[in-house]
Amino acid sequence: MEAAIKQFGRACPFLKSNSAASLRKLSHLPAHATGLVEAGVGNVRGSSALFFMAQKCPVMGKALAIRSKNYLHTSARLAKRPTLPLNQALIQENHYNRQQNDCPINHSTNAKHFDYEAVYKSELEKKHQDKSYRYFNNINRLAQKFPKAHTANLQEEVTVWCSNDYLGMGRNPSVLRTMHRTLHKYGSGAGGTRNIAGNSDLHFQLEAELADLHHKSAALVFSSCYVANDATLSTLASKLPDCVIFSDAANHASMIQGIRHSGAKKMIFKHNDLKDLEEKLQSVDIGIPKIIAFESVYSMSGSVGPIDAICDLAKKYGAITFLDEVHAVGMYGPRGAGLAEHLDFDLNARFPYENNGSVLDKVDIISGTLGKAFGVVGGYIAGSSALIDTIRSYAPGFIFTTSLPPVIVAGAKTSIQYLKESSYERQAQQLNTRLLKEHLANHDIPVIPNPSHIVPVLVGDAETCKIASDQLLRDHKIYVQSINYPTVAKGEERLRITPTPGHNKEMTQYLVDALETIWRKNNLKRASDWKKEGGRAGVGTSKPSPKPIWTDSQLRYVTSLPGHDNATLSSATVNSENQLNNEILVY
Amino acid sequence: MEAAIKQFGRACPFLKSNSAASLRKLSHLPAHATGLVEAGVGNVRGSSALFFMAQKCPVMGKALAIRSKNYLHTSARLAKRPTLPLNQALIQENHYNRQQNDCPINHSTNAKHFDYEAVYKSELEKKHQDKSYRYFNNINRLAQKFPKAHTANLQEEVTVWCSNDYLGMGRNPSVLRTMHRTLHKYGSGAGGTRNIAGNSDLHFQLEAELADLHHKSAALVFSSCYVANDATLSTLASKLPDCVIFSDAANHASMIQGIRHSGAKKMIFKHNDLKDLEEKLQSVDIGIPKIIAFESVYSMSGSVGPIDAICDLAKKYGAITFLDEVHAVGMYGPRGAGLAEHLDFDLNARFPYENNGSVLDKVDIISGTLGKAFGVVGGYIAGSSALIDTIRSYAPGFIFTTSLPPVIVAGAKTSIQYLKESSYERQAQQLNTRLLKEHLANHDIPVIPNPSHIVPVLVGDAETCKIASDQLLRDHKIYVQSINYPTVAKGEERLRITPTPGHNKEMTQYLVDALETIWRKNNLKRASDWKKEGGRAGVGTSKPSPKPIWTDSQLRYVTSLPGHDNATLSSATVNSENQLNNEILVY
Repeated sequence: MEAAIKQFGRACPFLKSNSAASLRKLSHLPAHATGLVEAGVGNVRGSSALFFMAQKCPVMGKALAIRSKNYLHTSARLAKRPTLPLNQALIQENHYNRQQNDCPINHSTNAKHFDYEAVYKSELEKKHQDKSYRYFNNINRLAQKFPKAHTANLQEEVTVWCSNDYLGMGRNPSVLRTMHRTLHKYGSGAGGTRNIAGNSDLHFQLEAELADLHHKSAALVFSSCYVANDATLSTLASKLPDCVIFSDAANHASMIQGIRHSGAKKMIFKHNDLKDLEEKLQSVDIGIPKIIAFESVYSMSGSVGPIDAICDLAKKYGAITFLDEVHAVGMYGPRGAGLAEHLDFDLNARFPYENNGSVLDKVDIISGTLGKAFGVVGGYIAGSSALIDTIRSYAPGFIFTTSLPPVIVAGAKTSIQYLKESSYERQAQQLNTRLLKEHLANHDIPVIPNPSHIVPVLVGDAETCKIASDQLLRDHKIYVQSINYPTVAKGEERLRITPTPGHNKEMTQYLVDALETIWRKNNLKRASDWKKEGGRAGVGTSKPSPKPIWTDSQLRYVTSLPGHDNATLSSATVNSENQLNNEILVY
Repeated sequence: MEAAIKQFGRACPFLKSNSAASLRKLSHLPAHATGLVEAGVGNVRGSSALFFMAQKCPVMGKALAIRSKNYLHTSARLAKRPTLPLNQALIQENHYNRQQNDCPINHSTNAKHFDYEAVYKSELEKKHQDKSYRYFNNINRLAQKFPKAHTANLQEEVTVWCSNDYLGMGRNPSVLRTMHRTLHKYGSGAGGTRNIAGNSDLHFQLEAELADLHHKSAALVFSSCYVANDATLSTLASKLPDCVIFSDAANHASMIQGIRHSGAKKMIFKHNDLKDLEEKLQSVDIGIPKIIAFESVYSMSGSVGPIDAICDLAKKYGAITFLDEVHAVGMYGPRGAGLAEHLDFDLNARFPYENNGSVLDKVDIISGTLGKAFGVVGGYIAGSSALIDTIRSYAPGFIFTTSLPPVIVAGAKTSIQYLKESSYERQAQQLNTRLLKEHLANHDIPVIPNPSHIVPVLVGDAETCKIASDQLLRDHKIYVQSINYPTVAKGEERLRITPTPGHNKEMTQYLVDALETIWRKNNLKRASDWKKEGGRAGVGTSKPSPKPIWTDSQLRYVTSLPGHDNATLSSATVNSENQLNNEILVY
């Protein structure tokens, strides 16, 4: 209050002529005790002498009158807080006026000024209008009860069926043990950028682990893969003179932003369309630098990029390839390096080294995340040493940001190492995905066909999709987020389901029953309905269903795991759950 | 290997006509046993029949010959790895050729193609030339021995004097306890974006905590403050029609990027120059939306933005203010809300609520970090509900990224809560800063004058600055990173020192002695030398030294802490260290 009084003092001749002590006295003295009260003038009930005098001041008085509405508003707000004496409220109100009015400072709320709040409100109204406004669900995923979570109500548990912690590594005992130890030893944060005090040996180790995973000579870790994609594409394309970027139409927002931020010329090719890509490549002079940016597994549809063929086109036309493996790392390949590794499964299983000749070698830059199958947080790129060093040296999004905490880095490193060795989690995940897709097909519930681990159930309308999601949560204690525009195109709204190794047979059956109930209740379209309408988003078309990326023979490796029989998919599934639940978390 | 053989089979008439079984047999059969060996043709020593035949193949043979140099290179590389039979190396080599040569696929390395690696190398060479190439130091900050760290050598401990873990919250027992508990309960990652499975109650709680801290109605958490600044400024300015952004010349890279990405018109005003800012504001029509983007404490110089006056100008010209408090949150103000809170210290201490009338109310948007004084990682903004909701609903950098793990969120929340209550750490930090600045002044070692907690010691040359930093680390076991271009202007290279509550009197004395030794040894310029040259970066000018933001009377609060006498600054410093060291970490 001292500071506030001093501050007023500088502006007001009355305050200036009074000592701080006398002002303090006035502020504690009730107005009616001053002998200055004139009947009917000002609001004196319970107010201080200072407040009373302020009302009579030619500056403050006017301000108080103008702001009376706001004053009441403020008072109402204050009422919810610890009770304040009115003279203290006056101090608040005075300062509030200092902001809102032309008093005591010499500028006013000007009608000609731009109305910022109106823009915010109008932008939000648009979201409400087209039903794309997002209400965040309160989901607290329980490590000890994976895949369960509690809601805002601690007692209410739901089963999470839409997390990107695809393999349950977020509760993996090895990962958690490492993180506890690292937290204890190195604390909660990195304490600086990679260049200034924030670079630990763990950061180097993680990058070495990632370079090895992807058979590249180097890797670089970022705050997230959003940042990795944005920073890498924008920096790289801006360094390559007259660079043209060829971008798959279904690319993730982070790549789209990176391309936009680079200022380079962009040519969008049709999703997974090699012919369209080649035509576009042909249209640019052979000597001009080109980047083809695409994904291996597309998150919302589960479709898969033709990596090998795109790399061949890149080579033919002198382009380099930027492959986002965000939804594939940990999930595909004998060591979990992603789809590029999976394409030469046996070769990579036997020779997991750089330059072993697999499709991995053909990809110039791979980006991935530590926050989905690896279960922690952060993103990265892997590529040639000179490329990585260039991005490290020039990308502002890498340079000027606090590095990931050692505890996070150590957890991610352990997770990667674990999944290099253990194929069990990704295989169990695939088995559970197959099981769910089979069940849904039997129920004629429309799944967008794809060869990957994503199970996108088509609803086709934003409002209905949210209703279905809400009913699942409320009536069945199942959490599957509705995916609406702009994440997917309008009319292609869906429930994106992601099975994990932790979803056992019973949970799967329960989910399918719940969906069946909801489909009936809301009269939602079945796969056969979409077929009659000519199909949508791949549902109900005449195209043959793509074969799963993980072949039957590749999945047979699950037999090699201790304590497993895999006579049927479902028994493997049940076992997987049991094994995971039997792990004890010790730290 | 099966997959690899199949893949070759598709391209080669020879392989096509052989079953997988017979190829496998050939690959296991020694060449000399086939009866096909002709003396002097091919390299058969120890190779398989398959390898031998490949050498005779018109396609593979040529490729193997051309690639012999690379082959040797690969072999050398393989030698460091588990020994591989040569037939397996052949498989690797074939695949390698598939990438590098015109065999077996129909496109070749074309001389006309753009040389990407050459660009990377040339960009890196530029960095080496101007001495701005960055070598990351290997620094592992030890939570139990703060502010010590070990280097790449586990036995070698150094004292860290340049971390942004300003208050040692990265090892705060309350923070670590919370994080251990949360890690155990909720696991290692969030498992999704805020909209899809990655939103927990902890995220809401943290945002409520931040909104309360800054007296705003809402807040929003991002992966980092780099992302917060970039995403907020770019989204906001792109939503406001014809928006003009007024940006302080010394603004951080993240704001510069955000402004660039918005596509809005930018006007840069001279650092902290109100006159220049006002002239620029006047030049734009009153009704056009305007954002003034600036910082409270500028990281590399420690200078301080005139928040109150800039807010007044904003009001006068109908602009909104975007204030980056990254280096001030946790450090200033009675509750650690930053410099805007500190300016009305007493008022905010007594009425820590929204609309209490302090300068805090005048700032429209505040951005801050969870990764510096708060000791964890992540960033945020605070502002009006409609603004926050707009950014939440439209910023791709917020929407399309995995949210911070609950363990991080919980740690940050605890740290903020702790620093709302405890002023001890920030006061001890200020006392230690004063002590160090006094010492350095006595030694005529040039500190760039500023009123904040940053101690930037001017060196003025990139190479010398790195030498000084390297000598400190090697000869004195003190880590202070050299700060070179582009983080600071050329010719203003510096050692940026950041005292913490953990740096005791002895450590400070030891640092000053080490700097004195290095200044003598390298004949570095003293403050008086810079003065003779007319000054640089604020050193040696005739301007009076700015008074510290924390006044003597504000610092006196330290006496109220239990077990403290503050007869002198140094005794307070020593005590602070003792108290922190006496805390026992229990989890």
